[in-house]
Parts: sequence; structure tokens; C-alpha cells
Amino acid sequence: MSGIRFYNARLLTMKDGVEIIDDGVLITEGERISYVGKKEDEPEGGSYFREIDAKGNLIMPGFKNAHTHSGMTFLRSYADDQPLDSWLNETVFPREAKLKDDDIYWGTKLAVMEYLTSGITACFDMYLKPYAIASATEECGFRCVQTGSMNDFSQSLELQEEWYDRLNKGNPLTSYIFGYHAEYTCSKELLEGLSALAHKYESPVWSHNSETLSETERCKEKYGLTPTGFADSLGLYDHGGGGYHCVYLSDEDMEIFKKRGLYLVTNPASNMKLASGIAPISKYLKAGIGLAIGTDGPASNNCLDMFREMFLVTGLAKIIDKDASSVPAEDVLYMAVTGGAHAMGLKDSDVLDAGKYADLIMIDLSKPEMQPLNNIVKNIVYSGSKADVKMTMVAGRILYEDGNFNIGEKPERIYSEVNKVIEGMKD
Amino acid sequence: MSGIRFYNARLLTMKDGVEIIDDGVLITEGERISYVGKKEDEPEGGSYFREIDAKGNLIMPGFKNAHTHSGMTFLRSYADDQPLDSWLNETVFPREAKLKDDDIYWGTKLAVMEYLTSGITACFDMYLKPYAIASATEECGFRCVQTGSMNDFSQSLELQEEWYDRLNKGNPLTSYIFGYHAEYTCSKELLEGLSALAHKYESPVWSHNSETLSETERCKEKYGLTPTGFADSLGLYDHGGGGYHCVYLSDEDMEIFKKRGLYLVTNPASNMKLASGIAPISKYLKAGIGLAIGTDGPASNNCLDMFREMFLVTGLAKIIDKDASSVPAEDVLYMAVTGGAHAMGLKDSDVLDAGKYADLIMIDLSKPEMQPLNNIVKNIVYSGSKADVKMTMVAGRILYEDGNFNIGEKPERIYSEVNKVIEGMKD
Repeated sequence: MSGIRFYNARLLTMKDGVEIIDDGVLITEGERISYVGKKEDEPEGGSYFREIDAKGNLIMPGFKNAHTHSGMTFLRSYADDQPLDSWLNETVFPREAKLKDDDIYWGTKLAVMEYLTSGITACFDMYLKPYAIASATEECGFRCVQTGSMNDFSQSLELQEEWYDRLNKGNPLTSYIFGYHAEYTCSKELLEGLSALAHKYESPVWSHNSETLSETERCKEKYGLTPTGFADSLGLYDHGGGGYHCVYLSDEDMEIFKKRGLYLVTNPASNMKLASGIAPISKYLKAGIGLAIGTDGPASNNCLDMFREMFLVTGLAKIIDKDASSVPAEDVLYMAVTGGAHAMGLKDSDVLDAGKYADLIMIDLSKPEMQPLNNIVKNIVYSGSKADVKMTMVAGRILYEDGNFNIGEKPERIYSEVNKVIEGMKD
Repeated sequence: MSGIRFYNARLLTMKDGVEIIDDGVLITEGERISYVGKKEDEPEGGSYFREIDAKGNLIMPGFKNAHTHSGMTFLRSYADDQPLDSWLNETVFPREAKLKDDDIYWGTKLAVMEYLTSGITACFDMYLKPYAIASATEECGFRCVQTGSMNDFSQSLELQEEWYDRLNKGNPLTSYIFGYHAEYTCSKELLEGLSALAHKYESPVWSHNSETLSETERCKEKYGLTPTGFADSLGLYDHGGGGYHCVYLSDEDMEIFKKRGLYLVTNPASNMKLASGIAPISKYLKAGIGLAIGTDGPASNNCLDMFREMFLVTGLAKIIDKDASSVPAEDVLYMAVTGGAHAMGLKDSDVLDAGKYADLIMIDLSKPEMQPLNNIVKNIVYSGSKADVKMTMVAGRILYEDGNFNIGEKPERIYSEVNKVIEGMKD
């Protein structure tokens, strides 16, 4: 007895660009895909735990949220419409300092719920208390790549090494990559120590990078190098990695990204809402830098929705390039799905193929904004929304279907706990 | 026997800013609201056609889509990622020339479906074949203010007068306001004729205005006046009206808007996708100009979603102002609801109050992105989506509820017809 068989599906495997297979079948076995393709080529004689009539709807690989701070859901709509400095120093930092393991556990579960409704099957999470995060995501059945947010005041090299060791050896839904918060919150010595760790384990390194102009300018004043140049000078990128935000990369920074094979995660909604700027995505794309998309955390976005981010990636590029043909929908979808998987080291979650993880979603083509069917990919990128996600599956398990969650916990409990977290912190 | 009674509701009436009433009751009678307020002040002894437990969810006035071309749904995702000139001249215009009444009728019904899913209870529609549009919207039970898209090649003064007369005397769901496509598609003589009509009926006049820089520059070269200044010099604004887009207003234009009491409808997604520019909304807001929000048509946006537009209004303002506190959520919500109603002449659809039309929506606060409940208004503007719209009511009739439509026609039929329209036009 195999897993689940979907039939009557349109398939967007993303193996070969954005070609769509009609009358497709997809079969899972355990946590992986055992068959995906035309019904006429389907292996004979299978029996299944469940058969699902996709009714012509689209099955595609799930979106990858390639930068987030999931546990910050407790601060959603608590710190908006205020300047960045007061947002960070008066609202966010004092409350984060009070967070307990349980607070992050519940906040992360709330974020996972929203990811699932937006067709996101994995997130690249940078936050506090990695074991609490792993408990939350694993109990939900959700895939999570964690990275460090180490800085001079929080986390340490010893802890990063412990997390790297333990979180990469446990549940296959969880992995860990070295990371630091940002150049401006870390001493040179701390980053030299992280470089040594990266060399010891031949691991990539990630961080916030060139999110604001002032951050970039201050780094140049301090070290005579950009944040990217400085990190590279310390050997942090000798085994790859990448940067979040990257609104203000220089041409030399772009050369480093290409030379080291670094990935760049753009966070357009957060960069707008915090007035940080607009990343020149078409320039990065033309340079051949590997691109992915992230929502950033719910305190700065505030929603965790890949559809909004996808529209912003192309819409903002069109505006700053003054060119309505800039960064077409197909490129955006690649960033949101396959590009994200590659950035996060999820080589088995990038496309639909036999042997790959069954990390996939069903898009409901019977919603008004998905009609007419002139071009399904452009429909998804330009008019898609959470309302179009009919089902989200991670590692062969359906975690969200027709508005209902299957994550081992009732939504009401999660809401109640997260409301308690912030209530306990209000002034 | 009265209409429908909602209880256990949170109420955002928008009568007094964004204050929310807990444990509220709202009662409809026919097409209007008969009571809205605290449960404890509810009139005694009513009997109702239906009672609905809102379960703590939010009831608020519906959004007003203050600029759209509904019938263009047939072109969704058919003309993307191409420069504006070829988009308009090679894709849009040749196909619009082939449109029949029935094509616009079905395309409009598809748009209405999407409006309802986005909590939009009225649209300000500028398109071809007004009787076909009115048939479609009225049969759905949807409120629609139409305006002319007259230009040198299509529509005429005689037709506008006929439409004004007939569409303002028929079904109260429909109304008509004089309008022209844009300065650059109309001769001076035609606009002088429209001004005479506006004076005869003491009616406002609307048009596309200063959508692109080149349009604005060319008008100045031709007439020595901006599109706003030129229209005002012809007396077109003597009885009010307004402009769509308005990306490039001069200080003098803003003075005319204030002096004539004109409304300005911003269309941020369309302006991004067609690379037209970013309207300086905080400047217009500070000047005291009446503001509203529109999606523009589905060929240029491509979705008809007020949530995405609301985020863009504030996000783009924050970016161009380099100020994360610019255009706060409360101002954006006012534009999307009350501002839109006032721009469209819908004085009885602007807020929830006894005697006003029951044009209202229920927002599902049990969705993950609506939690925690730190600030419901900021939740709606920053993390709201179509997925959060539980119910949409127009003129006392529930047209959309829990994903199901009550518009007198099956979705499948509408999809089938709209797909036929575009299939018949493909090269």
C-alpha cells in the first residue's frame, strides 16, 4: 500500500521551466514522490491510502519562505506606522528580551498555520531558542531550516556549534545553517570565530546584509568595506551561504555573490513597510545571482504570504526599471519555489519529481481570480492569493486542506496562547 | 418580520474613526440597516428572517473599488510583462474592438465574483456597453456606479446623456456619472460638449488623469496646461468629480482638486505593473484632498483585490517618503471604505448606521493572519487578504458567504463563458 494518489491534476513540476502537464497523476510514498507525470504513463497496479480527484486544479511544488522570524507573530500589528528606530529599540527589543521558550513555541506554530494557508512548505527561520522552534515546526509536520541570529548580546559560537550538531542529526524536517544577525551587531572577533566554525564544518553562512543604506555606509566607515566585502574578507563565505534583504549591494558585492555562489533573499514587503528601500532585483537577476524570496518576520511585514511578496518582487522591479516587461512572472515563480529551495539547501524540495520530497500544494483554479485560464503561471503571480490554496502537503502529509489544519493542535489553542504572550508584555 | 440579525459581532462602523464596538448587534431591514450598536441597547421584540452568530468576527462597511474596468477580465494574464505601448496597442485595443454586449456581460459577472471575495460591495466602473454592465451587476445584486469612457473613437455626448438619464432612473443599485477616457484621447470640442452636459445636469465629471509622465508632458505642450488645469479651464469640474491614477499632479493641480472638491482615486498595483510611477499619496493626504482606492482593470493589475491595494498605498508611501510612519493604516482603511463611497456619490454606503444601506462585510478573525488581536484595523490593512472575507452583503442581501456565491448564476457557467470570449479572439 502506497501513499496518496492525485488524479485529474494539472501538473507544474518546475523541472522544465513552467510547462504544464494536463491530465496528470502524482503519487506519494511515505514522505516522497513516487510518480509524477501523464496519466497514460502511470505505473499499473498501485493501491493507495487515499485517492484525490484534483478536478483539474494545479499541483505544484510548495513555496519556500526563504527569510523569516516566525516566532515574532506575537508582535503583529503591535508596532506599525512608527519610524524604524523606535520600532526596533522601543517596541521590539524590550519585548523580545522577555521571551520564554514557550512563547516562541506558540508564536512559531501560529506562523506555520499561516505559511500553510499561503502554500509555503518550508521556511528559513532566524530567531531565538532553536529547540523551541524545532519542537513547534516538527510537531506541525512542517519543514524548517534554521539559522543563527548570533550577535554580541545573544547566542554564541558554542551554542551555534551545539545547534548545528544536534539539529542536523535529528528529525529530517529540521536542519541548521550557521548565521549571524548582521555586521553591525557583531564584533570582528565574533565573526572570525564564526568563520572558523564554517571552515571546520564546511558550512555556508547567512546574515542580514545591506538592508538599509545607513547600515552599509557605517560598515564602510568602520572597516573600509561593505558588509558583503567585510564578511568575505573574514572567509565567512568560503563554503557559500548568502544574505537577506540585500537592498544596497555594490557591483563588487555582486561579484562576490557570484564568485562564492551566494544566494540572495529579497524581502520586498518588509523593505517597504520599514521604508528601507527597493532591492534592484532585475540587476541581480541579470547578473546571474541565485535569488529567493522571504516574507521577513510578522512584526515588520506583517503577513506571511508568498503571493503578496511575488507581486511586489515584479511590481517594484517594473517601477524602478521604468519597464513593464521587467522581471516576468516566470522568473518570480522560480525564485519563490526552486530558488528558495536551493538557497535553503533543500535539494529534494525544489521540483516535483520521483524521489523528491512530497512538499507540494494544490492551487484552486475554480476561484474567480484564477479565471480565465489564459496563463496559469501569470494568474498565480499576478492575481494569486491565499484564497487560492486548496491544499498544502509537507513530506507526504497533508497539513492543510480546504481551510482545515492537520497540525496536531487546534487553532483556537494556538491563538489563545499567542494572545497571552503579548498580553503579558503590554505596558 | 425584519431582515437579518447579526449578534456576537465586533463592529467597526467607521462613524467615529476606527473605534471597535464589542458584543455588537446589527439588524437589516430590506436593503438598509435598521440597528447597529451594543447588544444592550438593541430594540426589543424583533423577529428576523435569519439570525447569524458572528462568533466575535468583525462586521464593517464593504470596500469600494473606486476605479475599475470590470469587463476586462477576459484579458487577465493575456497581456503581461510587456511594455505599455505594445500592451495597449497590440493586445488590448484590437481585442476590445471585437467585444460584444454578451462578452462584457460575462466578463463583468466574473469581476463581481472576485469583488465579493475581496469584501468589495460597490465598484466605480468605466467601460464599454453600459447596459450590458448594468444587466450583469444588477442580476448579481451588486452595486455599481458607472462612468463614461468617451473619447474621439468611442461613445458620444448623445450616448452619455441617454445613459445618464436611463441608468440614474432604474435599479437603485446602478448609477451613472459623466466621464471621458482621458485628455489625450479626446478633442477639445468633445470635452467642451461634455462640460455643457455637466452644467446642464449639474453633474460631476471623471476621467483618467496624469497616469503617466509623458501624458502629462504632452498635454502641457499641446495646451500649455496640465490635464487637470485643462479640464478645469473647460468648466468640467464646476460640479465636482475627480481623477483616476493622478500619479503626476502639480501643486497647482492639487489646488484645483481642493477648490473644486474633487476626489482622487489611486491605483497603485496597476501603476506598478505598467511601470507608470508612484502617486505621492502622503502629499495628497496632507493637502486634504479626498482620497479613494481602485484596482484598475484586471488586464493591468491583474487581480481585483482591495487588500493588496491597501498594503500598496501605505507601503509605497513609506518607501518614497523614506518614513515608516507615513500614511498609517487607519487613513488607508478610510480611503478604501468611506473615501471611496464619497468619491462615488454613495452617501448611504459610507459607514454602518441606521438608515444606511446594508453594504457590509464580515472579516473572519479566526484566520491565522488576523491573530493575535493586538490591533484589528492594522491586521486588516497589513496582513488581511481575500482569505479573511467570510461574508459580503450588498443592499441587505448576502451575495457571498463562506466561499459560496449567491448571485443567480453558477460560477462554472461564468468561467465557461469568459473563457469562450478570449478563446474566440486568440491569434
